[in-house]
Amino acid sequence: MQFIYLDNNATTQIDPRVLSTMLPFLKENFANPSSTHYFGTTVLEAIISARTQVADLIGADNKEIIFTSNATEAINIALKGVAENYSEKGKHIITVSTEHKAVLDTCKNLETKGYEVTYLPVQKSGLIDLDELKKSLRSDTILVSVMYVNNETGVIQPIKEIASLAHEIGALFMTDATQATGKIPINVDDIGIDLLSLSGHKMYASKGIGALYIRKGINLSAYTHGGGHENGLRSGTLNVPSIVALGKACEVAEQEMKQDAERIISLRNELECELLKIPDTFVNGSTENRIYNVSNICFKGCDASVMIGRMRNVAVSNGSACTSAVIEPSHVLAAMGLSNDNAFTSLRFSLGKFNTEAEIKTAIKTISELTKMMLGYA
Amino acid sequence: MQFIYLDNNATTQIDPRVLSTMLPFLKENFANPSSTHYFGTTVLEAIISARTQVADLIGADNKEIIFTSNATEAINIALKGVAENYSEKGKHIITVSTEHKAVLDTCKNLETKGYEVTYLPVQKSGLIDLDELKKSLRSDTILVSVMYVNNETGVIQPIKEIASLAHEIGALFMTDATQATGKIPINVDDIGIDLLSLSGHKMYASKGIGALYIRKGINLSAYTHGGGHENGLRSGTLNVPSIVALGKACEVAEQEMKQDAERIISLRNELECELLKIPDTFVNGSTENRIYNVSNICFKGCDASVMIGRMRNVAVSNGSACTSAVIEPSHVLAAMGLSNDNAFTSLRFSLGKFNTEAEIKTAIKTISELTKMMLGYA
Repeated sequence: MQFIYLDNNATTQIDPRVLSTMLPFLKENFANPSSTHYFGTTVLEAIISARTQVADLIGADNKEIIFTSNATEAINIALKGVAENYSEKGKHIITVSTEHKAVLDTCKNLETKGYEVTYLPVQKSGLIDLDELKKSLRSDTILVSVMYVNNETGVIQPIKEIASLAHEIGALFMTDATQATGKIPINVDDIGIDLLSLSGHKMYASKGIGALYIRKGINLSAYTHGGGHENGLRSGTLNVPSIVALGKACEVAEQEMKQDAERIISLRNELECELLKIPDTFVNGSTENRIYNVSNICFKGCDASVMIGRMRNVAVSNGSACTSAVIEPSHVLAAMGLSNDNAFTSLRFSLGKFNTEAEIKTAIKTISELTKMMLGYA
Repeated sequence: MQFIYLDNNATTQIDPRVLSTMLPFLKENFANPSSTHYFGTTVLEAIISARTQVADLIGADNKEIIFTSNATEAINIALKGVAENYSEKGKHIITVSTEHKAVLDTCKNLETKGYEVTYLPVQKSGLIDLDELKKSLRSDTILVSVMYVNNETGVIQPIKEIASLAHEIGALFMTDATQATGKIPINVDDIGIDLLSLSGHKMYASKGIGALYIRKGINLSAYTHGGGHENGLRSGTLNVPSIVALGKACEVAEQEMKQDAERIISLRNELECELLKIPDTFVNGSTENRIYNVSNICFKGCDASVMIGRMRNVAVSNGSACTSAVIEPSHVLAAMGLSNDNAFTSLRFSLGKFNTEAEIKTAIKTISELTKMMLGYA
């Protein structure tokens, strides 16, 4: 059976070149980079190099990057670290109702600790209203956290404008760029990003690795205590093989994202165009301010969970994989005003650089036939 | 050049069988286990299997195991999670001055949040005095946290007696078993362990993975917020390849630890016996209550850092690798009453299952010649 993986926003396959770079650190170069002996020093050099590769991808300095075990941890370090360290200035945080659960659940936790959080609504497009943001900003707002690219819809928020508004009142600007990093060019200085989270396994590196960019001059409270690794913010032995993998993936992305994007957008558009020919289908969210690899489509009358279960050769997602332990309508689609019925019949297609023209054609055929059957046309 | 790695308490080489088990999950089985499609379900089954393998090694139920990115994180989740969740009962914690920094620094952090921590002293042997513990236990003591095997000296604390004393007054018992798991048989019920941390890369699995055993019925406050993974305590996409690796490493350890131990103790004893022939050398800590793979030896007059730097073919450690970014005498040796001079001239040899008789002979020769040169005998 030919497997067609259209769930690249959940996780990606490791790029074979990334795996090749990683393998020596799973074999002979296994020392602990904190060890002072020769074996450790060699590994430490690889860590420094990877840190630079990550920094280069987003126009940062390598001293501004700390490694984490994933984006969720990076987000927790950023939000809790800002909250605790800047609490004397204020205890108000602004975020958006369509953020990833890592942001939303961390904000809910902060609310139990005396912080006040404003969850901005979104429009039908999935975009926030900048006027709403302006009205929410206060003198005690310490942080505005808005994701770059939405994981479920691919909608791109106007983060440069958001950063600028946050800075006007002296708040920090954080962006969860998990679904943007490695896909579109990012320069933290041009945009005005103070904190940025990213994830290895969303960009063809391995699972178990993420990173947090922290602009020079911003101090966070320590998150995980121990040997003082990662500037004292996140202690614990470094996950060397995965760090090296992330570094390599960043290097590859920097070199190839433009050409990958051209190919992927053409495949995504073909898929979307053909699937929209199925009766009663529509795209959720803005198609203008949207990243090139995602299409979130509502198939009215077709239960998305049933579709996923029946397509054993096509992997797609309903809602985000990170919360799919719970059966409830996607909070993202709900925030955009979709009815429960429409949310439960929506599928997320997220393409990656390994998808082929043939796969897309097969997926179109599979889904078209399945919906016909489910709607009683066949 | 032949590399002789005698720093297995800092990190271990991945067992080739573990790597083989891990590789498919770095390649074709790359799906997110939270994904509901067929690809995700297959991976989820591997996670469940690994959780059982870890549980089996310590006589636990697989529902009592959560995966973390390393032991440091497991320790943070345990200590902070107990502190927050049991604070109404009391705010007193007891630990030991020779614990790993992951425990000590977390306790120091808890002290800034209104908790009171008693750091028990140790005797010259490295062992705690059980009478001291008895005197320290109070009605508001919520947790006693004592490591199983010391990472620097290999000293084994009487944790069954400690657990029993903790339970007498209704406190929980936590043990950081990072240097014990996979090396000696552990049964959490027999010993009376409520919480136990372990690390993959200390037992021939990969870096980037650890686990926390939480006895059924014990509730911890959530640590990292997000999609609700790992019983809501530690959100974030699971590090599938490393989880599978840890599971396999636990299975291998359960089957082979006895025969490995016999071989390693013989090599360790040979090494120690020969090195003690060097003038003015002695072993730090108890040689009776000690694990079989470690020897911490003081070479009076020979700076340990200089020795490590000069031995480009032998990897050993001074102090623990996890804190070696900072040049200060080992807090473990200091707590045992060693002078700074003796601490700065002490080396930790930690053997592993891949060490050979020939390697030990070469190491003995190298170190003997080096100390002779440094002491001016050669």
